Amino acid sequence: MSQKDKFTYIIQYQEVDEHRRLRLYTLENYLLNSAGLAADKHGFGVKYLYPQRMTWVLTNLSLQMESLPMPGDEMTVETWVQDNIHSLSVRNFRIYINGEKRGEARSVWVVLNIDDRTIQNIFDRSVFHLDEEGEKLDLPRAPRHTSGEQPDKEYIHKISYSDIDYNGHCNSCKYLERMLDLQEPPAEVFPLRIDLRYAKEVYKGDEVRVCFFDADGVYHYDLFTAHGELSCSAILSCGKDIVS
Amino acid sequence: MSQKDKFTYIIQYQEVDEHRRLRLYTLENYLLNSAGLAADKHGFGVKYLYPQRMTWVLTNLSLQMESLPMPGDEMTVETWVQDNIHSLSVRNFRIYINGEKRGEARSVWVVLNIDDRTIQNIFDRSVFHLDEEGEKLDLPRAPRHTSGEQPDKEYIHKISYSDIDYNGHCNSCKYLERMLDLQEPPAEVFPLRIDLRYAKEVYKGDEVRVCFFDADGVYHYDLFTAHGELSCSAILSCGKDIVS
Repeated sequence: MSQKDKFTYIIQYQEVDEHRRLRLYTLENYLLNSAGLAADKHGFGVKYLYPQRMTWVLTNLSLQMESLPMPGDEMTVETWVQDNIHSLSVRNFRIYINGEKRGEARSVWVVLNIDDRTIQNIFDRSVFHLDEEGEKLDLPRAPRHTSGEQPDKEYIHKISYSDIDYNGHCNSCKYLERMLDLQEPPAEVFPLRIDLRYAKEVYKGDEVRVCFFDADGVYHYDLFTAHGELSCSAILSCGKDIVS
Repeated sequence: MSQKDKFTYIIQYQEVDEHRRLRLYTLENYLLNSAGLAADKHGFGVKYLYPQRMTWVLTNLSLQMESLPMPGDEMTVETWVQDNIHSLSVRNFRIYINGEKRGEARSVWVVLNIDDRTIQNIFDRSVFHLDEEGEKLDLPRAPRHTSGEQPDKEYIHKISYSDIDYNGHCNSCKYLERMLDLQEPPAEVFPLRIDLRYAKEVYKGDEVRVCFFDADGVYHYDLFTAHGELSCSAILSCGKDIVS
């Protein structure tokens, strides 16, 4: 069984929206930070990879919440590796607010070479347990992504200083921030489900097109490169029964 | 003497820029969070004021740093009230990185009525010590703000979901984030000095004009409302001897 790690955070006033709910991209940031801390602790994090010119990159995130924390709330993120297979690492999360289980998430990662951005299969290294078989989550499958529809809203955003992280590319959480700036989450948010898919990295100075369309109350977001390639998509469903 | 409080944070990978330095608006956020925690602890924070339809609002921040923390660094923020006078509260900060003193900051605050945004003088209340006389800082005075020059660069930004905080107005740190998106800090950053002045709140949907000009290596930023009123200004000086 995979070892589980827990990290606890106190939610700040500055991290919530005007409804006093933790912003979704800040929650995503907490998940990614917890993943990073856990990976570093077990010897296969950025601390280990970066000097070898490699880094972890998130490709998918599915998150389901029954509530969101408010300022002063104690949020605990429990995380573990489900499996490492075919160059992909699946990492799960369970989210507790003031001690109560309120959500779950599943993430998929690859390791990239920093210089040429090619995928590296590093699971034959001694820092990984090849027999890793962590608890699976009972999350429904991600809804089907329906791209190519005419957006209800769109805007052009230039990738800037605040979007870029230590990897030199747009930070994973910033795609979602730019999407929610176009259309914020609906008022009736629970249960909340979001599915993010990362397809192509964007860099400082790139002009991206952020699109939104409302499919019967399910929010679809696409972020395209200047060449029209899909860079990232998100599907946000709130206040609906979520079935597989 | 005013009581000093200390809060410790571990810097996250996601909080640094591509040079692995903590972003300045994230540092500002840590200072404001520490101020909020200290005020709540002593009974005059937002926890106390918000139910009475009042809130703290930052009007000025001067910050000087000899270095910036990197991912994994432990940053401790020490904070105390210098004095409360004429509706203004002056709060100071000392910043330690891995135990070493690396910076100082001075902030000025007012209490606003949430509904009509008028300044409230609340220092006659029992939660305040009228004899408050905390340690002063030896920070040089803020440099003179020279507005009205022709900007070297400018852009229009629409205040969006991610800019707005629990007060329903643009978060204090987001003004600086939008400014640095126009022109990022220079490569030679230390010693680093930044002075922020907040003049007029902006709200969701407002289109603001962010301007930058370079005055012999000192960076001047102005953020104007759609009506041309100055909303916030910043002066950033890096790699220069800072004199009063």
